[in-house]
Amino acid sequence: MNTAEKRTQFEVITIGNEILSGAVSNLNARYACKRLSAAGFRIRGIVSVGDVFEDIRDALLRAVDNSPFVLVTGGLGPTPDDITTRSVAEIFGRPLRLDAHLLESIREHLERRNLPWSKDFERLAYLPERSGRIDPAGDMCGYMLQERDATVFFLPGVPEEMNRLLDEFVIPYALRNTGAPCRLAVRLYKVFGIHEQAVAEAIRDLEHSYSDAFIGYYPQYPEVHVSLTVFGETREEVDSRLETLDRLIRDRLGHRVFGNDQQTLESVVGDLLRSRKASLAVAESCTGGLIGHRITSVPGSSDYFERGVIAYSNRTKMDLLGVDPAVLEAHGAVSAECAEAMAVGVRTSAGTTFGLSCTGIAGPGGGSEEKPVGTVHIGLASEKGATSKKYQFFGTREQVKIITSETALHWIWRAMNHDPFFHRL
Amino acid sequence: MNTAEKRTQFEVITIGNEILSGAVSNLNARYACKRLSAAGFRIRGIVSVGDVFEDIRDALLRAVDNSPFVLVTGGLGPTPDDITTRSVAEIFGRPLRLDAHLLESIREHLERRNLPWSKDFERLAYLPERSGRIDPAGDMCGYMLQERDATVFFLPGVPEEMNRLLDEFVIPYALRNTGAPCRLAVRLYKVFGIHEQAVAEAIRDLEHSYSDAFIGYYPQYPEVHVSLTVFGETREEVDSRLETLDRLIRDRLGHRVFGNDQQTLESVVGDLLRSRKASLAVAESCTGGLIGHRITSVPGSSDYFERGVIAYSNRTKMDLLGVDPAVLEAHGAVSAECAEAMAVGVRTSAGTTFGLSCTGIAGPGGGSEEKPVGTVHIGLASEKGATSKKYQFFGTREQVKIITSETALHWIWRAMNHDPFFHRL
Repeated sequence: MNTAEKRTQFEVITIGNEILSGAVSNLNARYACKRLSAAGFRIRGIVSVGDVFEDIRDALLRAVDNSPFVLVTGGLGPTPDDITTRSVAEIFGRPLRLDAHLLESIREHLERRNLPWSKDFERLAYLPERSGRIDPAGDMCGYMLQERDATVFFLPGVPEEMNRLLDEFVIPYALRNTGAPCRLAVRLYKVFGIHEQAVAEAIRDLEHSYSDAFIGYYPQYPEVHVSLTVFGETREEVDSRLETLDRLIRDRLGHRVFGNDQQTLESVVGDLLRSRKASLAVAESCTGGLIGHRITSVPGSSDYFERGVIAYSNRTKMDLLGVDPAVLEAHGAVSAECAEAMAVGVRTSAGTTFGLSCTGIAGPGGGSEEKPVGTVHIGLASEKGATSKKYQFFGTREQVKIITSETALHWIWRAMNHDPFFHRL
Repeated sequence: MNTAEKRTQFEVITIGNEILSGAVSNLNARYACKRLSAAGFRIRGIVSVGDVFEDIRDALLRAVDNSPFVLVTGGLGPTPDDITTRSVAEIFGRPLRLDAHLLESIREHLERRNLPWSKDFERLAYLPERSGRIDPAGDMCGYMLQERDATVFFLPGVPEEMNRLLDEFVIPYALRNTGAPCRLAVRLYKVFGIHEQAVAEAIRDLEHSYSDAFIGYYPQYPEVHVSLTVFGETREEVDSRLETLDRLIRDRLGHRVFGNDQQTLESVVGDLLRSRKASLAVAESCTGGLIGHRITSVPGSSDYFERGVIAYSNRTKMDLLGVDPAVLEAHGAVSAECAEAMAVGVRTSAGTTFGLSCTGIAGPGGGSEEKPVGTVHIGLASEKGATSKKYQFFGTREQVKIITSETALHWIWRAMNHDPFFHRL
């Protein structure tokens, strides 16, 4: 490892018994590694210890000896087993001091939420001597300190807070302080409909041809996320490399890429619907509301989302979607005919541009030889008519629900991007 | 930590760059921790390093100094970046020796799968001196060795193989060799409707009174999960302590505990509905389908879940739920009157035992002084009538949706558990 690499090295420490007991996944470590890698940092290691003083001490002392940056998460809360800050005070000989500003903001935070004050919350306002508060938005607080040659960041273990403080404060701060001559830019590509392996085969040579670029592959079921990081000495150099590689990646992956960076499939679909002044209604069977939940996770989705019908019974399919009993009789609820009738039915009653539907067997029960678990029909209707397609998905109940909702949302995206499959609509 | 605890201590080391880049979750570590904890072992820590000699060396040397058992996974494969075994040979001064039996079984394995022989595979048949093969089934191989006072197990990183060798060999071997008198039991409590802080205040003294117990608090928004671990010398002792503490915890937390272990709020609600032969329909506005998605995440939920209506527009509230336009005119869609009308409407048309509804402002836009973001009305209807209540939630759009769905599902649980609030239903 050369000196420049060493200068950009992080060690990640997560504190909490819940990781060691296997009760929860170490989401914080994974998020941190992904974001720090994409920002050009090398991760030397991840150490997970419990809420145990000796183990926290050993991990911290080793980390500050080995790496210029140390990220610590967990153990900052108000419960008795949260001992990170107390431990830091003792390990580094930095008595705890009351941060009056912090105390005030904790009080306000509790008041706003009508939560009662307790002595335990006051404890949260004491930080180790010579440390700096990290709280860009002022709610949950982290802090940082310099110890030996290392900068140590302490973030709360609540994932939302940890992620936000990492992105908004830790990474920008560390980038400013690496002393590295290098600038970088990161772009994330969201891909659906192609296996991780095939994504890698399509673009892996780019990394060899462009030594100032790093390409990472992150399967995020059922999507694949590809991160492109380019380095350079000036902003112009970085921008021009990013443009070149962006064009190449788009050429190779084509319409498999549905979005970038913070975009989600539901936000991209929403943007398209809004810009075309189109509207949507959904009729869900096997997804049970997941498609509606995803669509409405986008702020402002009421502009284009009119309604959803979760038709979990045949009766509901008939009563609310107008599916002909003869269709159910002849083909069953899991059929192309039923999917199309559901899409037409929900579109007609809602009076929307599109009607989207799905019906299938999420499992683990309910499968048969003819229609095994994972059999799903997706349907789409517009004013011109309706179409549907049968899929065979695999996996757990949750996975079947997720990939069905993804495929259904992707249909809207494809239809609005003039995919020939939807030429009749 | 007492000696008995120390004798049952494991340290877990995972080797591989893919964890450090955030490309994959550390599933092996989580599986190992869960299984080892359940078998009564304490996990001192998890260390994840890359395929880097110095980092592997540091992690291994520290682990054999600190713990009687060390589990290492990853880096045993045939590709050039798999350096675990080479590193072990050097670190512990144990030259690699050809294991003829292993070479033969690798040859057979490749032949059976019609894979071509290559020099890289021969490398896999070399194990460090004085190590023992771990290959109960003979396919992928691990090995173990004694170093200082520690037993070190090396397992392949492929999750299926790693899990199998852990369960079939490592845990039984370690249990036979702990000499520890100690057994344990773990129970998880799922709590909703009370802050983590208040949960801790209600039960934290138990840990002091019962030194053979450990209580952990895991906020899992919007729930709090409490884990109880009890230790003892015999199974009877462990069981009796678990009973005693279980009674105390239930006394203290009362109806705040809705479930244990693998149960979820939606599975508990589903079990209650099924056992009472009751059925449910939901009318969702601000949750956009999340309540239906959660209910239908439980296998077999079609037994009691009839339908959901995602009424994202006033028109849908009128057309599909029969909400009187005058109600919307006079009180608005976010009102007690509308929530009750939605619950009654969906119940009536679906013909179910219960009709559950919610209407509110998930944000970030759409709030007003009178009805700020987070204002939510939940409604419940039965054959006897309907009731509703106004809540003020806080947080992001996602958080408001989640806590609304949780509160609504909790209403069904409370109503079926004879909560006096629902006496009119």
